[in-house]
Amino acid sequence: MDSTMDSRIVAVAGVGPGLGAALARRFAVSYPVALIARSQQYLNTLSQELLNNGYKGIPVAADITKPEEVSRAFDTIERELGWVHTLIYNAGNAIFGSIREVSAEDFEANWRACAFGAFLCAKRVIQEMLRHKSGVILFTGATAGVKAGPRSAAFGPAKFALRGLAQSMARDLGPLGIHVAHINIDGMIDEPKVRARFGSVSEENLLKPEAIAETYWHLAHQDKSAWTMETELRPFTEKF
Amino acid sequence: MDSTMDSRIVAVAGVGPGLGAALARRFAVSYPVALIARSQQYLNTLSQELLNNGYKGIPVAADITKPEEVSRAFDTIERELGWVHTLIYNAGNAIFGSIREVSAEDFEANWRACAFGAFLCAKRVIQEMLRHKSGVILFTGATAGVKAGPRSAAFGPAKFALRGLAQSMARDLGPLGIHVAHINIDGMIDEPKVRARFGSVSEENLLKPEAIAETYWHLAHQDKSAWTMETELRPFTEKF
Amino acid sequence: MDSTMDSRIVAVAGVGPGLGAALARRFAVSYPVALIARSQQYLNTLSQELLNNGYKGIPVAADITKPEEVSRAFDTIERELGWVHTLIYNAGNAIFGSIREVSAEDFEANWRACAFGAFLCAKRVIQEMLRHKSGVILFTGATAGVKAGPRSAAFGPAKFALRGLAQSMARDLGPLGIHVAHINIDGMIDEPKVRARFGSVSEENLLKPEAIAETYWHLAHQDKSAWTMETELRPFTEKF
Amino acid sequence: MDSTMDSRIVAVAGVGPGLGAALARRFAVSYPVALIARSQQYLNTLSQELLNNGYKGIPVAADITKPEEVSRAFDTIERELGWVHTLIYNAGNAIFGSIREVSAEDFEANWRACAFGAFLCAKRVIQEMLRHKSGVILFTGATAGVKAGPRSAAFGPAKFALRGLAQSMARDLGPLGIHVAHINIDGMIDEPKVRARFGSVSEENLLKPEAIAETYWHLAHQDKSAWTMETELRPFTEKF
Repeated sequence: MDSTMDSRIVAVAGVGPGLGAALARRFAVSYPVALIARSQQYLNTLSQELLNNGYKGIPVAADITKPEEVSRAFDTIERELGWVHTLIYNAGNAIFGSIREVSAEDFEANWRACAFGAFLCAKRVIQEMLRHKSGVILFTGATAGVKAGPRSAAFGPAKFALRGLAQSMARDLGPLGIHVAHINIDGMIDEPKVRARFGSVSEENLLKPEAIAETYWHLAHQDKSAWTMETELRPFTEKF
Repeated sequence: MDSTMDSRIVAVAGVGPGLGAALARRFAVSYPVALIARSQQYLNTLSQELLNNGYKGIPVAADITKPEEVSRAFDTIERELGWVHTLIYNAGNAIFGSIREVSAEDFEANWRACAFGAFLCAKRVIQEMLRHKSGVILFTGATAGVKAGPRSAAFGPAKFALRGLAQSMARDLGPLGIHVAHINIDGMIDEPKVRARFGSVSEENLLKPEAIAETYWHLAHQDKSAWTMETELRPFTEKF
Repeated sequence: MDSTMDSRIVAVAGVGPGLGAALARRFAVSYPVALIARSQQYLNTLSQELLNNGYKGIPVAADITKPEEVSRAFDTIERELGWVHTLIYNAGNAIFGSIREVSAEDFEANWRACAFGAFLCAKRVIQEMLRHKSGVILFTGATAGVKAGPRSAAFGPAKFALRGLAQSMARDLGPLGIHVAHINIDGMIDEPKVRARFGSVSEENLLKPEAIAETYWHLAHQDKSAWTMETELRPFTEKF
Repeated sequence: MDSTMDSRIVAVAGVGPGLGAALARRFAVSYPVALIARSQQYLNTLSQELLNNGYKGIPVAADITKPEEVSRAFDTIERELGWVHTLIYNAGNAIFGSIREVSAEDFEANWRACAFGAFLCAKRVIQEMLRHKSGVILFTGATAGVKAGPRSAAFGPAKFALRGLAQSMARDLGPLGIHVAHINIDGMIDEPKVRARFGSVSEENLLKPEAIAETYWHLAHQDKSAWTMETELRPFTEKF
């Protein structure tokens, strides 16, 4: 177990009422957590919920695809909580459609949210991690980033780019004490927006956010003699 | 968390003073464990150690590459402990050499220990798992089973076969409630035989067996809404 | 063999004195070729060379990372030669460095040249290909797009994105008669800029552009009952 | 183009009325071909057909899963034709079924035909190839060897093993002048036994043996500065 565990600060980028919230709740049990998302409203709600449970989660509204907002967000976090030991990059944007359907704007928008934002946040947080020779960066991936389907002409390349970034970082930063991992979430997560979109989907075909969060927690606490770089999670019913 | 957790029986096939022992020790903290290996001697030592610590680990000597010995071993386990809920297949045999160096006998011997034994043990234990609609099977893989190097002409194909088996089983048995996973151990494990062979290797380049066992433990307890099929473990210093 | 072979028009995007030129020369033996690159000068030289040999290659200067220039370029090609049956996307930009070294601008620049430009060109040419139910799109990939090394923090994600795009397109467009393939060039190509940068590299460690072009030619003429989607090329001496 | 091209001898192991015959016919146009299969009858028919067309194809009946028969077969070939420059290993055996369905005997039988036979033949022919610093070995793979489905519990591990062998050999023998490649045939081949089994399958969903053979031919003649190790072939209609 990492010796810095007791005092680590966690940042979750991409917090909404689904996986992001579950990750924040899971890590808040032991650490102060910075909650990052574009809109302030849900962050406030979740922050208050954590507070009510005796945990600490500060809301940090920022568009993580903008370099200056990323800088400002992490400046705030460092000032209020301290240096980020564990970054969970859970942001993304999925516009589905074949190349016949998606536009150049869709292609770029997905890349900005899935890959460019990941680069910006990671580049910012590794400065302190390198100084402390310790840190964890977990990226929420998707099957489209491992195998891009016909309707993933925009989302697939964006998630592929994220995985490429994770690999490069893992190879560079691992020997320097920073654990980088990519988690392929292979299936639909049981969260409000999925329920709204696929009303009839059976519960046993969905990944439970709390279950996913357990694996993130495990990864974030692996001994450095046995780190995972790439892993995957899917419901037991999933075809793959 | 699996409802059968409290009463599960665990079998570790391939128990020696290294990863096998660490896995047995980790799971014995909560469950009765059957220890399977070819030679009785180390099993007795480890069984006694577990007993001294208040845990239960029964020694079951068997050559798991022989169908009749596999049958007999699991008959014994079922009689003495009950049906096997969690099988960890950690057996193997690594003869290194290029195709110019290894013989047909080497090629077959590696396959028997790495893949055929896995098939025999898995085929035997899934009978009860299917009846209980619950179970976990974890396979110890190796990098040679993902990317076969020039000196893995015998070992590589054997570990590849194991991974193919794990994939086929995961796809067939997952929807039936049995969690199958393959763990690629990408690096050298800190165990006596490795120390003996590579005396000068730095400790930080080795996987600690106890650290590996933590991830097996995590995998064995994943919620079925978020199962891992393939994952990997390596020291933070490892080139990959 | 494709029935449209005799009359096909080929476009090579990313033409410089190396692989781009070799591809143009190879296909020009049988088809009119449009040569696309940012700077006019080399295009004119190559166009003249082709003409001197009795072949047809028209220079089309365009920055293929700009939507409007891509439109204009293919409008020109259609007007002067006809609809593009075979697109070879060979453009790219490689800024090497770890995440500690590369900037957000580098990250974006590599993505624009490797992935965004590919999307723009492909999206443009498939319109006519779909109408003719025939076409070939070949993408020049790199090992960094399959396995991103520590110094590929910008280039790796860009080439990963390209591969994701190729996969999505292949799955969508294949059944509609358009053959999409991704060729991983795993090694250094014997071209002027590589020679200049790595002066001392032995010739047998380099991929010959003409040899690569033979495989592109083969792929571009596969029967549609047996298409390749992903393949790779490397020198016989390459470690992989 | 390889300088030994004019005089090379080709051996095809696994010759039946489908892909094996198409490969033999394709290479026989330029080279003497040894036809290897267990049963003599079809070999005689094909040998006669080749002769009638002015080509040379000698029948060599052998069970390539038996070391002594492999030795004898290649002794015969060397005596009658010369050293084998190009070996195409197209043998195999596919018993489909989940782990619940296939037996240990099925598991072993598939491995013997797909992987062990490949090892035996390859180990035998590389002796002369190494002496001549030249040679080509092509392995017929299958999707089950890349991604093992639920009903590939026997066939999948066997084809995985073959791919592992191909990789190890390629990495060892490439720098010594021997080109090893693995071709994933991702789909059903249009051959009599497939037609008999899946009578109603549409022709456009099948790989044409002659089309596959064109890619084998291409691979067998790649310049050593640009060799392919892994590639894949599938019908344009195939889902993947």
